[in-house]
Amino acid sequence: MRVSAIRATSSTDPLIPGSIERRETGPHDVLIKIVWAGVCHSDIHTVHEDWGPVPFPLTVGHEIAGIVQEIGSDVTRFAVGDRVGVGTIVNSCGECANCKAGLEQYCLKGNTQTYGSLDRDGTITQGGYSTHIVVDEHFVLRLPEQIPFEAAAPLLCAGITTYSPLRHWGAGPGKKIAIVGLGGLGHMGVKLAAAMGAEVTVLSRTLKKKDDGLRFGAHHYYATSDPDTFKRLAGTFDLIVNTVSAALDVDGYIGLLAQDGTLVNVGAPSRPMSLHVQPLLGARRSYAGSATGSIAETQEMLDFCAEQGVSPEIEVISADQINEVWKRVLSSDVRYRFVIDMSTLS
Amino acid sequence: MRVSAIRATSSTDPLIPGSIERRETGPHDVLIKIVWAGVCHSDIHTVHEDWGPVPFPLTVGHEIAGIVQEIGSDVTRFAVGDRVGVGTIVNSCGECANCKAGLEQYCLKGNTQTYGSLDRDGTITQGGYSTHIVVDEHFVLRLPEQIPFEAAAPLLCAGITTYSPLRHWGAGPGKKIAIVGLGGLGHMGVKLAAAMGAEVTVLSRTLKKKDDGLRFGAHHYYATSDPDTFKRLAGTFDLIVNTVSAALDVDGYIGLLAQDGTLVNVGAPSRPMSLHVQPLLGARRSYAGSATGSIAETQEMLDFCAEQGVSPEIEVISADQINEVWKRVLSSDVRYRFVIDMSTLS
Repeated sequence: MRVSAIRATSSTDPLIPGSIERRETGPHDVLIKIVWAGVCHSDIHTVHEDWGPVPFPLTVGHEIAGIVQEIGSDVTRFAVGDRVGVGTIVNSCGECANCKAGLEQYCLKGNTQTYGSLDRDGTITQGGYSTHIVVDEHFVLRLPEQIPFEAAAPLLCAGITTYSPLRHWGAGPGKKIAIVGLGGLGHMGVKLAAAMGAEVTVLSRTLKKKDDGLRFGAHHYYATSDPDTFKRLAGTFDLIVNTVSAALDVDGYIGLLAQDGTLVNVGAPSRPMSLHVQPLLGARRSYAGSATGSIAETQEMLDFCAEQGVSPEIEVISADQINEVWKRVLSSDVRYRFVIDMSTLS
Repeated sequence: MRVSAIRATSSTDPLIPGSIERRETGPHDVLIKIVWAGVCHSDIHTVHEDWGPVPFPLTVGHEIAGIVQEIGSDVTRFAVGDRVGVGTIVNSCGECANCKAGLEQYCLKGNTQTYGSLDRDGTITQGGYSTHIVVDEHFVLRLPEQIPFEAAAPLLCAGITTYSPLRHWGAGPGKKIAIVGLGGLGHMGVKLAAAMGAEVTVLSRTLKKKDDGLRFGAHHYYATSDPDTFKRLAGTFDLIVNTVSAALDVDGYIGLLAQDGTLVNVGAPSRPMSLHVQPLLGARRSYAGSATGSIAETQEMLDFCAEQGVSPEIEVISADQINEVWKRVLSSDVRYRFVIDMSTLS
């Protein structure tokens, strides 16, 4: 099945419209008509080969919201017409200890990412900047009606990537949580942590987005460009979720943790980080990493957002704006997630 | 009160016998006649000023086993003649959140170390290489009869420093634990983790002490000088307790952790460590630090050792052997802890 898609043909050329092949809908598959596709910074990193070589041509996008158009013969959880989502993972081995424990994101054989991964059938997965996608029903999420359709897409990456560490490290009433960076992920981290009942602080380079941060539910907002911030907030946080992929002064942020606190990176800079052990040891602190969330946890996050009225701040764009919008993402000119209206891709 | 002590007068001169002043036994104090004093690598690091400048002359030693000789008017928990111990901490503020939570080792105002710390009365604390010590009863431990008296001393530092992270990170049946280094701390880590019912692996530079490791309760023993070890054991351990203070290939050890595993340093090299975030993020792993244990946890550890028949491997020395023995510690020629018979100090 040939479907329209936005394609990257190299790490330097602009994205262009074109078409890609989707497999036939197998017994366990769901064919989804994509309605909205979020634009994640990872899409750009990948195409720019910041994270390693890429099998061009490639269609990226892993924040997908759409409508079920066809289901396979053995599909039980979805029906034609359902509002569904697909995130960063479309397959995993299903047999390792982590898959059996419902932690597909940590599949020991390596899960299949939504784009640029070698799929089970030997093809390279192609992502959400397209009009249709075929996905095993296990990796398809139900989108609650309460979440505005166009705002649901960014939850599938930005939402779950911050929700998972917040839950895992116990964000909730009585806990002091800091979110580093107020971008696509960071603004979801703030909304989610606040909805969980935690006391939320934004640590951003400047105070430029302070009003936004407070409007999203943050209780405090500090500029990390001000050295005084690191003195004033020393020993404060139970959990710091770092959404900034750039290299970080790890010691500085570890110093902001309270007793038994954890600094979690949800992005991985390619360069090694440097840190001293003493600040960890002096208060039994931890430095950790977290990669997106499981399928079950993603569904839990969606249901939580529906119940709490949490949704991302988005700006809808048409398909032909994608190259301009990628430039805006690279210059941090985004409030706070671009979502492509896929009906504009002929 | 003037008491005999082994003294360091500079970072380079040999230790010499001499005398130090002990305070009068206050209402909450216990005067202890020291019978056994363990020799910890920290004693040497401190005197050599590896960790910063030291107020010489100084008497070190923070693994103390002795007999109560006198009690203050308000002391309720001890009586003259009791077998007692003192570890690495002799005071803390008692008022901060951590002290109130029974975590004196993480006192937010900084606890008073057994030697080289500024005490509440303005003097510099002097440690266990002496015939007597006066300590607030809150920081005095009860030594169960089942633990051989001379073997009790090393439990107060080497024992609790490994016991605390093992307990905090859930060592027990079904858990795979690795202990890095088979020295004073490492050999206690092996014995304690095995007694807790965990599956224990020693990761030592060579296989030289393999027979000892297995005799102490380890189930497996690998040489870290063999690169194959890091391939063979990839993704194995729920917890790795690193007892080696030297700089470490953190990425290599993080790679040995299973899903959600933690690498804990119980010593702090002064140089910064370098690590990549990706191995943390790929399996939600953590890199953490742990500093000794609380007073309550130290008592729990002593009672656990009595119940389980756990005690360190020691070599008793006389006071005049101390300089020779420090050289042996520095060349790793120790199986596994030296304990000074304080009756030999006239």
